[in-house]
Amino acid sequence: MLYNDSIVALATPSGAGAIAVIRISGNEAITIGNSVFKSIKNKDLLKQKTHTLHLGHIIDDTKTLDEVLVSIFKGPNSYTGENTIEISCHGSTYIQQQIIQLLLRKGCRMADPGEFTLRAFLNGKLDLSQAEAVADLISSDNEASHQIAMQQMRGGFSNEIAKLREELLNFASLIELELDFAEEDVEFADRTQFHELLNRIEFVLKRLIDSFAVGNVIKNGIPVAIVGEPNVGKSTLLNALLNEERAIVSEIAGTTRDTIEDELVIGGIGFRFIDTAGIRETQDVVESIGIRKTFEKIEQSQVVLYLFESLKFKVQSSEYILEIEKVKNQFPLKPLVVVINKTELLTEDEVAEIKNQLQPLNVILEMISAKQNIGIEELKNQLLSFVNTGALRNNETIVTNTRHYDSLLKALNEIQKVKYGLETELSSDLMAIDIKEALYHFGTITGQVTNDELLGNIFANFCIGK
Amino acid sequence: MLYNDSIVALATPSGAGAIAVIRISGNEAITIGNSVFKSIKNKDLLKQKTHTLHLGHIIDDTKTLDEVLVSIFKGPNSYTGENTIEISCHGSTYIQQQIIQLLLRKGCRMADPGEFTLRAFLNGKLDLSQAEAVADLISSDNEASHQIAMQQMRGGFSNEIAKLREELLNFASLIELELDFAEEDVEFADRTQFHELLNRIEFVLKRLIDSFAVGNVIKNGIPVAIVGEPNVGKSTLLNALLNEERAIVSEIAGTTRDTIEDELVIGGIGFRFIDTAGIRETQDVVESIGIRKTFEKIEQSQVVLYLFESLKFKVQSSEYILEIEKVKNQFPLKPLVVVINKTELLTEDEVAEIKNQLQPLNVILEMISAKQNIGIEELKNQLLSFVNTGALRNNETIVTNTRHYDSLLKALNEIQKVKYGLETELSSDLMAIDIKEALYHFGTITGQVTNDELLGNIFANFCIGK
Repeated sequence: MLYNDSIVALATPSGAGAIAVIRISGNEAITIGNSVFKSIKNKDLLKQKTHTLHLGHIIDDTKTLDEVLVSIFKGPNSYTGENTIEISCHGSTYIQQQIIQLLLRKGCRMADPGEFTLRAFLNGKLDLSQAEAVADLISSDNEASHQIAMQQMRGGFSNEIAKLREELLNFASLIELELDFAEEDVEFADRTQFHELLNRIEFVLKRLIDSFAVGNVIKNGIPVAIVGEPNVGKSTLLNALLNEERAIVSEIAGTTRDTIEDELVIGGIGFRFIDTAGIRETQDVVESIGIRKTFEKIEQSQVVLYLFESLKFKVQSSEYILEIEKVKNQFPLKPLVVVINKTELLTEDEVAEIKNQLQPLNVILEMISAKQNIGIEELKNQLLSFVNTGALRNNETIVTNTRHYDSLLKALNEIQKVKYGLETELSSDLMAIDIKEALYHFGTITGQVTNDELLGNIFANFCIGK
Repeated sequence: MLYNDSIVALATPSGAGAIAVIRISGNEAITIGNSVFKSIKNKDLLKQKTHTLHLGHIIDDTKTLDEVLVSIFKGPNSYTGENTIEISCHGSTYIQQQIIQLLLRKGCRMADPGEFTLRAFLNGKLDLSQAEAVADLISSDNEASHQIAMQQMRGGFSNEIAKLREELLNFASLIELELDFAEEDVEFADRTQFHELLNRIEFVLKRLIDSFAVGNVIKNGIPVAIVGEPNVGKSTLLNALLNEERAIVSEIAGTTRDTIEDELVIGGIGFRFIDTAGIRETQDVVESIGIRKTFEKIEQSQVVLYLFESLKFKVQSSEYILEIEKVKNQFPLKPLVVVINKTELLTEDEVAEIKNQLQPLNVILEMISAKQNIGIEELKNQLLSFVNTGALRNNETIVTNTRHYDSLLKALNEIQKVKYGLETELSSDLMAIDIKEALYHFGTITGQVTNDELLGNIFANFCIGK
């Protein structure tokens, strides 16, 4: 890779808006900007201070492309650590294209996805886990994921890892030293202290690894399958859950009409509701395909809401109870919430009767009226109770990144080997190998250890312009 | 309207990108910005110079919302002429919402569409026609419309109008003066010079009014109906026109499948190609609905391309010639281009024969092969020849705005009344009324004469954040 050429990209979302921002970074960024910019006050951009703004026109030969504001950031005081300019132009797609094409002709190269952040990492402005948090921050769409990304971007996670790595490194060098004096059989590294450190590292690693369960949920949302026949009130229920929270809804149209997902945020946690048909047994081929699909979707979700209509349930409860048992037996470990909707149509006695009928099944039961907004709060608390948000509430470091999770697992494995070696009085040279491995895995998280392929994978998932 | 409160809006397109820009304008903009911003270097935004950039965090109480860059513009040296700050934050929708909500709580109000530009107008930073050009610039999607919008934004059009208005104003005051000395029957305004001025104004107005024909075409694109049976090669033709130009294509899905429009730019001018079915006479009800629709679309377009396949044309030329005549008779004034496609399948003699057959019809004929890219250049030149781009090439002022066109027509009408009054020696007091009317219409273009309703109409068409 070449890291001193000048890269250009649109940094704002594509499409028309009031303004758009085009970003250039590289040694020659300001020189290239200056060559296409005519300041209103005839200023030379090269002579301007860092962190200043300048009004003028972008000129292509004799043609004026736009009136713009240019921001100047001189390396290392910029996001990338290099000379950077940002051109704030009018938000027409045509103008954006024209300006970028002009800059390409003047010697810039189109930036790869995430290349600005890659340069920030390579220039030491961010460590690798901070760089990854930038992408997480941009894609975060609820409070919990935003909070975790901000914490990680500000170095919370890296600091914890880096501190442990440093302590381990100290011991590693002492043990390396012992190898140099192998014939003399001395111990520079205090075995008791070392054991204590390994325990501490193991404890932290385990906590971080455990946090991934909640981190993953927070980052990706919790998939919830809503099982129920048509017209039991699925969309009314979703609206009821939604209205109270004033959250963001989006409809992700799937491959078929019946895999529509509704995403909504409850208590800062994203839930993805996956609509499915019921599972009533039938001779009909089409319906039995439906049942197979329902089971597939239940398999992909972490929670199942089984929704019934109160009056229908009253009439054919035995049939429905069989269905519930079928789901329970198929997925014994998956939390199953039976929701009886339209309870406003039942008498108190009828409600009590249904509760009695369902008691032997030992399922979680919620009696609601989506229309009259009864029982919705309880249902939401029930859903939230499946998420262990303790770590989040206590502001602890939470791992959300699969790559970090993977490195932490590998580091833990090595640490446990070292610990076992220490306890069984393994020779220093063999122990040193395991310590090196552990250090390696720590290093991959923060980017002290890295390679082009790893960087390529990480930054390919970034958006262009970041 | 209140013009000293602080308004806030997202200035970049909505959706996720690397960064987003939130703009605040108003007396208190910097104070409000300062109240939610914590600079990395502990800077007080109120003490910073205009046109400077500052790195820091947006803080909501104790919660950090984002790491941002804040730009400061002190009135009158800003777009609106007021104190303005721009917050460049990470491009997540969640963050954008959180920051805007925080600013609303801190005393900002959501900006109406175009309200920043409205304030720029009210604060004398732009005249009205320049403000309108800002919206045109943002929506321009080809070179011609972009060039006209730039010219207008830089005051080309307003200057021309303002100069004429000033000259007319001079004469108006001389004539008003005559009214004061009415009893003495003096003439302060030189009637010969005045007549000469009226002629000059009339000439300019007529030129501007005439330019609207091309201006309108440039702004909205030229609708071209492509008539032809299925499989004559309509999409291959569009691709051939397109590929050479490397232009922007967009598919605008209409209400029905058969009103798909392809927009492409040829020689800097936008053409909108409207696909239609053929017009073959038939007994079939569905087909005859098709014919009616085809005629409707021809009516809406300015040019008709009638596309045939060479081999089929050879076989049933007499039938096809009847169809061509039908279109010609129905729309005698509409340019009609008969295009014979797939000419690579014909011998030279067959080509000559078709030319002979069509000669009596006196239509424009283009023999092409869309597949082999033969005759495409000629077809494009033919299409461009329908647009009188003389004014554009000569860099003259072109009117693209219906409101300006309307005001110019009204001004011309009044000027002609004044001229007639002058020629028929109408009394000064009556002439003064017509002059005032003419001045009024000039004034509405540049905004020297205006009212809330007019401003409301104009700026309602702007996007939010501009």
